[in-house]
This record gives sequence, C-alpha cells and structure tokens, in this order.
Amino acid sequence: MNLENINNYVPDPTVRRLSHYKFLLENMKKEGRLIVSSTLIAKELGFDSIQVKKDIQYSGIVGQPKKGYKISELLAGIDEILNWNKVEKAILIGAGSLGTALMQYNGFKEIGLNIVASFDNDHKKVGKFVNGIEIIEMDRLEVAAKIMKIKIGIIAVPEESAQSCADKLIGGGIKAIWNFSPKIIQVKKDIIVENAQFIQSLALLTYKIRVNKI
Amino acid sequence: MNLENINNYVPDPTVRRLSHYKFLLENMKKEGRLIVSSTLIAKELGFDSIQVKKDIQYSGIVGQPKKGYKISELLAGIDEILNWNKVEKAILIGAGSLGTALMQYNGFKEIGLNIVASFDNDHKKVGKFVNGIEIIEMDRLEVAAKIMKIKIGIIAVPEESAQSCADKLIGGGIKAIWNFSPKIIQVKKDIIVENAQFIQSLALLTYKIRVNKI
Repeated sequence: MNLENINNYVPDPTVRRLSHYKFLLENMKKEGRLIVSSTLIAKELGFDSIQVKKDIQYSGIVGQPKKGYKISELLAGIDEILNWNKVEKAILIGAGSLGTALMQYNGFKEIGLNIVASFDNDHKKVGKFVNGIEIIEMDRLEVAAKIMKIKIGIIAVPEESAQSCADKLIGGGIKAIWNFSPKIIQVKKDIIVENAQFIQSLALLTYKIRVNKI
Repeated sequence: MNLENINNYVPDPTVRRLSHYKFLLENMKKEGRLIVSSTLIAKELGFDSIQVKKDIQYSGIVGQPKKGYKISELLAGIDEILNWNKVEKAILIGAGSLGTALMQYNGFKEIGLNIVASFDNDHKKVGKFVNGIEIIEMDRLEVAAKIMKIKIGIIAVPEESAQSCADKLIGGGIKAIWNFSPKIIQVKKDIIVENAQFIQSLALLTYKIRVNKI
C-alpha cells in the first residue's frame, strides 16, 4: 500500500464516494466475488468510471490491467483512508427518536464507531438501555467522557439545545462532534464538527425536483 | 430576480451551502436584522467570503456595494433555487425510530416538505398517529400514493427492505425518493434518488479524525 498517498489530502466528494464503494464491495465479497473493475463499480452505483479510478488512486491500490482490483485489497485501502480499520468510542446526547434510531443501528461498529453511552435530561429515560447502550443523566456527561477518554460526541437534540450540548462535550474533552441538529454550532478551531446533512440532503432533493420539473 | 440564473445548473456543494445560509439568514431575520454582507455570512459559518459571494450569484440577487444584501431578498432567492417556496407532499415508509424522528421534526414544512402519511407492515403500529401523521398498512401504499398524487417518497426501513420499498413507491407513481437506508437502490433513469448521507457524513468525520491525528 502506498503510504505516501494515504497521507495526502482526500477531497470531500471522494471521501463520500469511497464510503459508497465500501458498501458495494462488502456485498460483492459476501457473494464470493474476488476481483472488481472500476467499470463495474461505476455501473452499479451510477458513477463515471474515470471518477471511480481517480478515487481509488487515493488508496494507493493498483489494479491489474484488464482484470481489475482485488476486492479485499480495495476494502483494506478504503478502510485505511476512512479510518474504518479502527473502532472509535463515541457518546451520544439525546435519547429521543433520532438518538434511539442511531443507537439501534448495528452497522456503525463495522465502520469505526462504537456508541458506548448516551445522555439525556429526561428522568423517565435515565437508567434505561437502548440496544445495550445505557441512558445516563446529563449532569454526569463531562466526568464520564473524561473517565472513558471519549473523543467523539454525537448531538441528537433539538436545535435550541445543540450549542450547550456541544459546550458540555468539549468540556468533557471531546475532540470531534457529529451534529445531527440543524444548528450551526460554534467551536474552537481544533474541534472537528461534521454536520449530518439532513437538511442539505433535502435541499439537493428539492432542487432536483424543481430542475427536472417533476 | 434574474430568472436566467435561476434556471442554470447549480453545483451540489453550492446547493448544500445555500441550505446553510437559509438557516443563518432566518435567524438573523428573527433578530430584526435587514441587511447582511457576504463577509458576515462567511464569518458566521466558517466559509470563505468569495465562495459565499459566488454561491449567492446563482440566486441572481445583487447586493449594494459596501452595504450588502437585503436578507428578505436573499431568502426569497435561496427558497426559489431550492424549491423551498413550495410545499411538496411526501409519504414515508418505515415507522421505526428513524421514521418516527422524521415525522416528529416540525421544521420540514418550512422548507418544502410535508409528510402526509406513513406506511409500515407492523400491525401494532398501523392506525396510530405520530405528530398527526397516520401510520397506514403497507399494502395500501400504491393506491394511496396514486390517489393523493404524491411525488416524493421517503425510505426509512432497514437495508434489506429498501429496494422493495423503492419498487412499491415507484409503482405508486412516485418520482423522487429520499433514501435514509444505507442501501444503494436501483431505479429507472427518470426517478430522482437522494441518499440522506448518514454514512457519507460519518466517513467525512472519521477521515478528519485520522488526518488530524486526534
């Protein structure tokens, strides 16, 4: 594997597409397939095959001419770029319906994320478990995050509480926030924030509806 | 408003950022502000101000030199691009925790989406209401979608049921699908599919965690 490339900057659209390839390749692997071409990946996902080739170059994985890529190598390369070969512990704030949906999704562990605890200020929820994940009182967040040395916090609360939750997470030593609220949260420069683009995704959908006049 | 520009192709990253501006501008409007500069928008959202200017150009809205844009005009321009000045009816499949979260979110109506019904094959759920939205038996989906002339379908079911749900939606005359499952669904070319990039968003987060060595 070309570690030179691995350390290079990868553009956001490539990162997004690589996560798509990962799911497709895992399915192909399950079906017993060993080799795949960029043309087939492109066809299955409705992408351009030159684009697929360029994206794969970031992994440093080289295919065999007229044959293609070894699926296992490609998966290892993608996992390395996306940091999905490690599992990072995360805590979640907000055990409402969205938070519950996130806790119930069993696929995160396969792609680098392990939600180890959740926090809510609703006393009726505190002490209960969702999919094996305990709901803990909000007041205990900062201490718990520090003790467990958690680096990732997930925000699944309404817009108006998002900023104070972000502040609590950072107070607990969290370095990266996955924000599911529509609120743009303000953080210091060394904190990573990724917004789980619900609304941005809806914007793309409604924009396309207008342009295609459906 | 420059309708020439409105009909032009708008790149995906611009569409995403415009949805960000919309929320910021709505907040500024609530606070009583009338005028905003691209520099202030850029500062508030951590974007580049030249980028913001370029994005706004797609709306055809022109600012006053050294003053900025009228917020109300800018909001109208963004709503027009994103098709958020109309409200489209949508139906949702899957009244699990994710589907429930989507039904409970009251913000969609303000940005062009009105979920009018949901469908599930769990008989314990059928007949109940979530946030005023009825849960209807799956078997009735195709007929109901046709009668209500629905164009948008939302998929909030597990991966393994996503394709069959997409087929049912299309059978019911749906033209655009907002897919919340990680499954890449296969559709005819004239159907719009937008994936609500949970996993793509996580990929961006975990990639940044690796690169920044946090």
